[in-house]
Amino acid sequence: MRKAYHEELDRIAESLVEMTHLAASAMSRATTALLDADVSLADSVIAADAEIDRMREQVDLLSFDLIALQQPVATDLRVVVTSMRMSSDIERMGDLARHVAKVARLRYPASAVPAELRGTFREMGTVAELVVEKAGSVIAARDVDAARDVAREDDAMDRLHRALFTHVTGSDWPHGTETAVDVVLLGRYYERFADHAVSVAERVIWIVTGEWGDEAAGGHDEVSDHTVV
Amino acid sequence: MRKAYHEELDRIAESLVEMTHLAASAMSRATTALLDADVSLADSVIAADAEIDRMREQVDLLSFDLIALQQPVATDLRVVVTSMRMSSDIERMGDLARHVAKVARLRYPASAVPAELRGTFREMGTVAELVVEKAGSVIAARDVDAARDVAREDDAMDRLHRALFTHVTGSDWPHGTETAVDVVLLGRYYERFADHAVSVAERVIWIVTGEWGDEAAGGHDEVSDHTVV
Repeated sequence: MRKAYHEELDRIAESLVEMTHLAASAMSRATTALLDADVSLADSVIAADAEIDRMREQVDLLSFDLIALQQPVATDLRVVVTSMRMSSDIERMGDLARHVAKVARLRYPASAVPAELRGTFREMGTVAELVVEKAGSVIAARDVDAARDVAREDDAMDRLHRALFTHVTGSDWPHGTETAVDVVLLGRYYERFADHAVSVAERVIWIVTGEWGDEAAGGHDEVSDHTVV
Repeated sequence: MRKAYHEELDRIAESLVEMTHLAASAMSRATTALLDADVSLADSVIAADAEIDRMREQVDLLSFDLIALQQPVATDLRVVVTSMRMSSDIERMGDLARHVAKVARLRYPASAVPAELRGTFREMGTVAELVVEKAGSVIAARDVDAARDVAREDDAMDRLHRALFTHVTGSDWPHGTETAVDVVLLGRYYERFADHAVSVAERVIWIVTGEWGDEAAGGHDEVSDHTVV
């Protein structure tokens, strides 16, 4: 029974790691679709989100059954409960990648991103992919130090997001309101994507140490919230 | 033992309902702060969010201990696991109210909302308060029909959000980029607030029926997502 139990726990962790790969791929392809105004790539991101949703549901049902049938305690229970939260974070990351792809689709054949902001979005895409892949490694290895790295990487996203915001709301913004709105919402999607990666990493810290991260006190979008930039 | 157990379950439900009252009050006061450019009211909303965060943590620890010590199964386990998800939804609603208050604070002594949009935001505030109070009643009564009402109320929010978006991105928007950005992000905060109320209601449907709502398949911001308006 215990062997089957640990196999189930491993299966849940593997599914979560696989979900991070899918989310990383989705955001990477969404960024390319956005910058290259590639509508068929955007469509593929939008379609692929269903697989992340399906895996989330599978992780949640597995976790629920494991609690009901095996009645884990202590660290094992923390792992299972936390898995359901991580699946929710990663599923939301998939949604945010899909949102980016939809903006790409909506503005096709133009790109939603003005030329001078392409570099910023390319960098946000790179950071997004990095933080979610790191979050996946953190899940696989239960590595608390690496988990703290994810929060540091998120600082880079916050800086990019702030710079974006300052540029768009500057008095010399030449691209009109619709583009401003696209850019600001896109920026928020990337920034929230990274926030959820930080949440995943902090949940691993909780599994290992039993201590709640800052996440429990209200999420990560303070620093980069538009009201404080 | 079973008596203590059901008392604990009741205590969790009561805490969740109390959290919905706090979130309703927060969004109501944030809306007033926004429309009246009332900076001390905005500050009180920002400060009060810590109480919602504290209650969320309390619900999660209570739920976790209940699973560990009482090993509930079937519906009882569904209730406890789902409570932790509802606490997360409601805590996020508190964050979103705080975001609205922060925009009010940032633009003080002006109002972030142009005169012709005051009615729309007042209505969004009313719908937000309504859906979260209804979600609270749904938790208290485990009322599946009322839960489905919440989703219908959310349609009103989506219509308001779409109208806002169309207005801001219209070619005759006279208020400049910064105000457009404020209005669009504010609109998103209200819309996400209502989405989380729908999630809470759908989680109650899951408790009662054992069926996953649409929520499990990826959240509610499709309809009002800016990419499809």
